[in-house]
Amino acid sequence: MTIGKNAPAPPGGRLGFVSLVGAGPGDPELLTLKAARRLAEADLLLYDGLVPADVTALATRAQHFSVSKRAGRPSVDQDTIHQVMIRGARRGKRVVRLKNGDPFLLGRGGEEALALRAAGIPFEVVPGVTAAVAAPALAGIPVTHRGLAAGFTVVSGHAAGAFEPILGAVAPGSMTVIVLMGLRNRARIAATLLDRGWDAHTPAAVALAASTPRMHLWTGSLGELGTARLEAPADAPGTIVVGEVANLSALIGGTRTPARTDAPRTLDGPRVQARNV
Amino acid sequence: MTIGKNAPAPPGGRLGFVSLVGAGPGDPELLTLKAARRLAEADLLLYDGLVPADVTALATRAQHFSVSKRAGRPSVDQDTIHQVMIRGARRGKRVVRLKNGDPFLLGRGGEEALALRAAGIPFEVVPGVTAAVAAPALAGIPVTHRGLAAGFTVVSGHAAGAFEPILGAVAPGSMTVIVLMGLRNRARIAATLLDRGWDAHTPAAVALAASTPRMHLWTGSLGELGTARLEAPADAPGTIVVGEVANLSALIGGTRTPARTDAPRTLDGPRVQARNV
Repeated sequence: MTIGKNAPAPPGGRLGFVSLVGAGPGDPELLTLKAARRLAEADLLLYDGLVPADVTALATRAQHFSVSKRAGRPSVDQDTIHQVMIRGARRGKRVVRLKNGDPFLLGRGGEEALALRAAGIPFEVVPGVTAAVAAPALAGIPVTHRGLAAGFTVVSGHAAGAFEPILGAVAPGSMTVIVLMGLRNRARIAATLLDRGWDAHTPAAVALAASTPRMHLWTGSLGELGTARLEAPADAPGTIVVGEVANLSALIGGTRTPARTDAPRTLDGPRVQARNV
Repeated sequence: MTIGKNAPAPPGGRLGFVSLVGAGPGDPELLTLKAARRLAEADLLLYDGLVPADVTALATRAQHFSVSKRAGRPSVDQDTIHQVMIRGARRGKRVVRLKNGDPFLLGRGGEEALALRAAGIPFEVVPGVTAAVAAPALAGIPVTHRGLAAGFTVVSGHAAGAFEPILGAVAPGSMTVIVLMGLRNRARIAATLLDRGWDAHTPAAVALAASTPRMHLWTGSLGELGTARLEAPADAPGTIVVGEVANLSALIGGTRTPARTDAPRTLDGPRVQARNV
């Protein structure tokens, strides 16, 4: 079955299309080839607030529409997002719905897909690089590592009602725990794990603004996570890592991507620092 | 500290460099821009067996070296991989170590980073799109979805010694469970979850060869997972999904990427089918 079958034909007979696209963790170079192409071809761009300007700038011919969901700012209603996408596609536009990281991981992409499907709008999902894995990796922390962790759990730290049941469902010390969007709630996140029986000495890390020039890493213990002072702009996205793998950052070091013109053969190119990546 | 500082200067004064690169789930279009550039610039390519030929083909000027880790085939010893990377970099080469999905997720990338670090070789990590999220997404399954799952756990199904403790550490029905490289062990994976107390009626899915033209989706229940006949080539990579979100594939449908020349505006472009994506 072709997905466009139920869509009403737009004027002129050209059918619009919606791409639910992952923007990756921040660095425009971590967009996929497909995501970059969809942006270049887009007529209408709906993007989340945390997507950097040098990523949205790739949609050179599109009308841009921010649907910011940054903490503490008014955001566009989810139904409005659905309606704007649907209306754009019905008018024959190539619509790109650009979301941080991966579109189907903690970003309500599933709801948008269901809305498009219900409206008969043809759409696709363009997976992206998620900060859940990439932010730790760029800080020198593999989410799994032989002898330390064979698996990991990912949850959003945005709302206690969501993260508390998940963190409570994981046996203490059994695997790596990754929390996205949890900076403001990190005291409660840490308390939830400690109450569950996690050891306060469990290594912990927070990768801030990973993959961007502002990238910064805090490392310490779970016991310190709740009160740690994070030296980063208040609006920097952060990825919390709890588990033995967090200690590897001191051994592996981080990847700092130089400006836009990488020169991997030279010493002045990518740098690694043990703590402050 | 610049990572090259401890590296011995190669003959001619040019220092080599190693990039630990994620190849994504299969579709070359799901490489990141940075990964594609590293491949194009590489002098030496070491790649895992499951990386498709049309991805490795992007390393046009490099010497290619397969270090296959496909199930049932002899694989190159991990120490040998380390030594080949280190020797290449010491000879001034731009080395790309290309791994399926993300290089720091279940792929021993952390061990390779530690070996490079110990040898004083400058290196970077280039995160990739992981099949743990992308394979379900392309089959119409968001790993999280409001009201169904607020988090998820990822583990490798390659060895029972690794997946059994992880699956045992997650409370039944509490979140989505994703198992990579678990097709051969799916009976034991299902039994582990059922023994742990998961309901046999829990929706389950297996996304095979996701993002490639051979993509296929099986859906059923956890009780059926262990004995299900999967209609796919024996060597197709598979991603197992257990949890309520698996039911969404029937509602959302999958994204099938047409051949290399995507044409998102036309009806003959991407297709969605409810079951067989």
